[in-house]
Amino acid sequence: MLLLRPIVRGCWVLQRTPRLAAVAWGSHPQACAAWTPSRAHGTWSPGDGSRRRKVMAVGALLGLGAGLAYGDHRRRAAEAEPNAEAAPGAPYPVFTRQEVGRHRSLAERVWVTYGREVFDITDFVELHPGGKSKILLAAGGALEPFWAMYAVHSQAHVLEILQAYKVGELSPEEQSQATQGDPYSGDPPRHPALQVNSLKPFNAEPPAELLTENYLTPNQLFFKRNHLPVPAVDAASYRLQVEGPGGRVLALSLPELKRRFPKHEVTVTLQCAGNRRSEMSRVRQVKGLEWGVAAISTARWGGVRLRDVLAHAGYGEEEEEAGEQHVCFEGLDKDLSGAAYGASIPYRTAMGPGADVLLAYEMNGEELPRDHGYPLRVVVPGVVGARNVKWLGRVSVSPEESPSHWQRNDYKGFSPAVDWDTVDFTTAPAIQELPIQSAITDPAPGATVPPGELTVKGYAWSGGGRGVVRVDVSLDGGRTWHVAELTGEEQRPGRAWAWRLWRLTAPVPPDATELDIVCKAVDASYNVQPDTVEPIWNLRGVLSNAWHRVRVTGAED
Amino acid sequence: MLLLRPIVRGCWVLQRTPRLAAVAWGSHPQACAAWTPSRAHGTWSPGDGSRRRKVMAVGALLGLGAGLAYGDHRRRAAEAEPNAEAAPGAPYPVFTRQEVGRHRSLAERVWVTYGREVFDITDFVELHPGGKSKILLAAGGALEPFWAMYAVHSQAHVLEILQAYKVGELSPEEQSQATQGDPYSGDPPRHPALQVNSLKPFNAEPPAELLTENYLTPNQLFFKRNHLPVPAVDAASYRLQVEGPGGRVLALSLPELKRRFPKHEVTVTLQCAGNRRSEMSRVRQVKGLEWGVAAISTARWGGVRLRDVLAHAGYGEEEEEAGEQHVCFEGLDKDLSGAAYGASIPYRTAMGPGADVLLAYEMNGEELPRDHGYPLRVVVPGVVGARNVKWLGRVSVSPEESPSHWQRNDYKGFSPAVDWDTVDFTTAPAIQELPIQSAITDPAPGATVPPGELTVKGYAWSGGGRGVVRVDVSLDGGRTWHVAELTGEEQRPGRAWAWRLWRLTAPVPPDATELDIVCKAVDASYNVQPDTVEPIWNLRGVLSNAWHRVRVTGAED
Repeated sequence: MLLLRPIVRGCWVLQRTPRLAAVAWGSHPQACAAWTPSRAHGTWSPGDGSRRRKVMAVGALLGLGAGLAYGDHRRRAAEAEPNAEAAPGAPYPVFTRQEVGRHRSLAERVWVTYGREVFDITDFVELHPGGKSKILLAAGGALEPFWAMYAVHSQAHVLEILQAYKVGELSPEEQSQATQGDPYSGDPPRHPALQVNSLKPFNAEPPAELLTENYLTPNQLFFKRNHLPVPAVDAASYRLQVEGPGGRVLALSLPELKRRFPKHEVTVTLQCAGNRRSEMSRVRQVKGLEWGVAAISTARWGGVRLRDVLAHAGYGEEEEEAGEQHVCFEGLDKDLSGAAYGASIPYRTAMGPGADVLLAYEMNGEELPRDHGYPLRVVVPGVVGARNVKWLGRVSVSPEESPSHWQRNDYKGFSPAVDWDTVDFTTAPAIQELPIQSAITDPAPGATVPPGELTVKGYAWSGGGRGVVRVDVSLDGGRTWHVAELTGEEQRPGRAWAWRLWRLTAPVPPDATELDIVCKAVDASYNVQPDTVEPIWNLRGVLSNAWHRVRVTGAED
Repeated sequence: MLLLRPIVRGCWVLQRTPRLAAVAWGSHPQACAAWTPSRAHGTWSPGDGSRRRKVMAVGALLGLGAGLAYGDHRRRAAEAEPNAEAAPGAPYPVFTRQEVGRHRSLAERVWVTYGREVFDITDFVELHPGGKSKILLAAGGALEPFWAMYAVHSQAHVLEILQAYKVGELSPEEQSQATQGDPYSGDPPRHPALQVNSLKPFNAEPPAELLTENYLTPNQLFFKRNHLPVPAVDAASYRLQVEGPGGRVLALSLPELKRRFPKHEVTVTLQCAGNRRSEMSRVRQVKGLEWGVAAISTARWGGVRLRDVLAHAGYGEEEEEAGEQHVCFEGLDKDLSGAAYGASIPYRTAMGPGADVLLAYEMNGEELPRDHGYPLRVVVPGVVGARNVKWLGRVSVSPEESPSHWQRNDYKGFSPAVDWDTVDFTTAPAIQELPIQSAITDPAPGATVPPGELTVKGYAWSGGGRGVVRVDVSLDGGRTWHVAELTGEEQRPGRAWAWRLWRLTAPVPPDATELDIVCKAVDASYNVQPDTVEPIWNLRGVLSNAWHRVRVTGAED
């Protein structure tokens, strides 16, 4: 019953994978008949048939709840039989690392090792929730260094799935693959108040009730959203590479950047595309970290203007008439294949007269912390966090968006009708400006509120420099509304990059046993939040900006 | 029972005024006791007391439905007793026009004439739904010329209300005030297919099913939204006045405009702030014309860029650091006080590098029609129709928004919690960019759809150049969704000024007796439409952009 444990924060993969496997192996016995020995490889003795039966039993169980349309996956999975069908008790065949290393592609079959065991994961490649390209990085070698990078794999479920693909064991002569140095061992220390969604890479948010205690979020509490280990960058030898129009690359040291370009400071709110994803997951499970309401924070950023740097490199303010251009960023944080985190923004976002896009080296008056991109990061006001590339290594201008996975195949919005079998990432635009958002940070859900007056607090923010013009708060689930008081800086129209905090003090209805507190905000373009989560549900759980609801209990007089 | 007739299109004032009067006269008999003869004026004999009793009876009836919080109005109305309390059958006192003309202010009492009757409307001044300043324009004189301008007064209800204020009659020696020339007699002919919301001023929309037959709306069907009579402008003597930075005024003829500045063409959708207001009225009555879904249309506009003209006048692209500036427009359409229609837009909207704000002289390749601003109008892409000033007379730049009523005290959004007693127009920003919008134009509500496949059609548009990236359509009230096919031009990101038309063909569920068709759109900033109307209800009925719903009946097989 191991596979049936409740979903834990950040572990979507564990929910989805066994369910797929279950549907595949449990519901299509006819597919078993199609399996032939020609798909077996190497030399071996028959293995333990009970494994397969166990998976089928679990599959039958899970199949009951597998009403989602997994179409293609189900078909492919139906053909994905475990390759080893050894007799009970018989030993597995034995391979050298060299032999394993020959299986590095779908054509040659894809083998991997974990500990001293060998697995043929060919038929799992297409099912890998992290994508085919990622799993193929491990082809022919050991899984450990990859799993060390993506801690989501360190779960009993994953080992269970892997066991179904076992085809052999490593020769006793082979040295055990020593666990690689933990790529996250160099990550900086973090504040203990943070609520951690994922340790490796590190993703955490402050407690909601602390979030709105300050208009500027203290650096240590500012939400952390890392995709990879925090790189150790030597500021002295650091050079920002800026590619000019003819391909000429400028290499700018930090002192050069600070000397050449005027310092510019802007108060900007950053929000993760997945903020409030946990509310979406409650409708139907989505892929992604289970953020609460606090994957959003505000800082006063100091640095140089990107437009000044690009102008210095030879770019003009007007976009090419030939078509839209993009400013592409590469981070110094890299995955094991050497691919850097990357993203891009439209040229006009960087170069417009009101553009406040920064290459920032300061955060709330301090040197940029390591978790936030030391020594230099991009801050793109009004735009989703994912484009605010940290540990900035290179800037270039291109007629194409960044080729990065995170630009092309992630951080996009889809209809609730789209699932993982039908999704086509080319059909949706990369998220840039975010829509209007607000949430209640106080009281906490489930709190007991005393009779008399209740003060409700929260934040509201919108993308694209559209200031928040109003926050409506309801204590009765949205039947009647009050207008909240906005606090914090009122920034310039069209360049309102930071949130407004808000509060409402209203009488608690004397006989209230439960209050259904709701907030919704309006921005300068009179955009409003949608009423409910279901109709904006999307498979990645991004853009979760329905009215925020907090239910509390009224205390007896 | 005259006062209880159903609300008709465009006649909000008739609903509200008698209700106020009724609450005042029907529910506060104690106020009658406070009335003293010292408030009577002139010399007269007692009049017909039955009038007052009749109003009180109607008031008692209407009082049942007057649950809205009219607070201040109620209090003020309670003090507003009719002044004439003449005995039954007795003649009214007789006045000359000169005598009437002495009552032109609240201090001197406010008298007016209508036909041969004289009224003291002092106590109605504050209750006038069109505002105190407007009604005072008629003080001391005849109502006819004003009522000719605002046809909303030509209703039996209004005369009924007026009768309660009668204080006398005109001397038989006085010439009857000949009905002034109808200020609307010079309005152009209109297409008979238009659905008229108001004749004077002319406001009309095309039938929804015709609206989306063309990506570019034919000029004759393009929705018309006039605030005043269409001015007769002589193109030969026409001069656009442009006020430069030092106050110097350029006067540019049409040939000069065309010669000096490059011609620029842009396809732009214009939408009235009140589009879809009728859906809001169904929640609770609002003030404004009862637009359906077609107060929106698209044309290819040709003209000169406002930024080129302002640059010629001496303005630079960068806004003053001192603060936000506004570009103010004055129309040549004027009310009886000589006040022109006016509006303003933020300087950055006019002057940014991607700004496509036009001074347009062409519409869909034709000379600008008179109803659309001949010979020159402003077209502000992505911005509410009200700022697209027609019959443009003057352009200036100011640190303040246009002082016009329509900029300062109209076309703003408020919380559903705000009513006419609590509204403070200074607390909300003037509507500029509009939020994401979409509607179904085919099938029509109540249609019977044949079995098999159903094709649903509609439009989607968003303000601020945010293109429409997706339209979701549901046939089951929003439980399940389909992604519609978008048609029409895909404009440049950030400058997507025109709508997308869309269609969806889907199977009709075989046993469906009723289909609840719903559409909702998503723009490039991933803004979505709110689910329902109630929570965005506002007293002016603007910004009505909830999901659009059309219920149709399934035909038997």
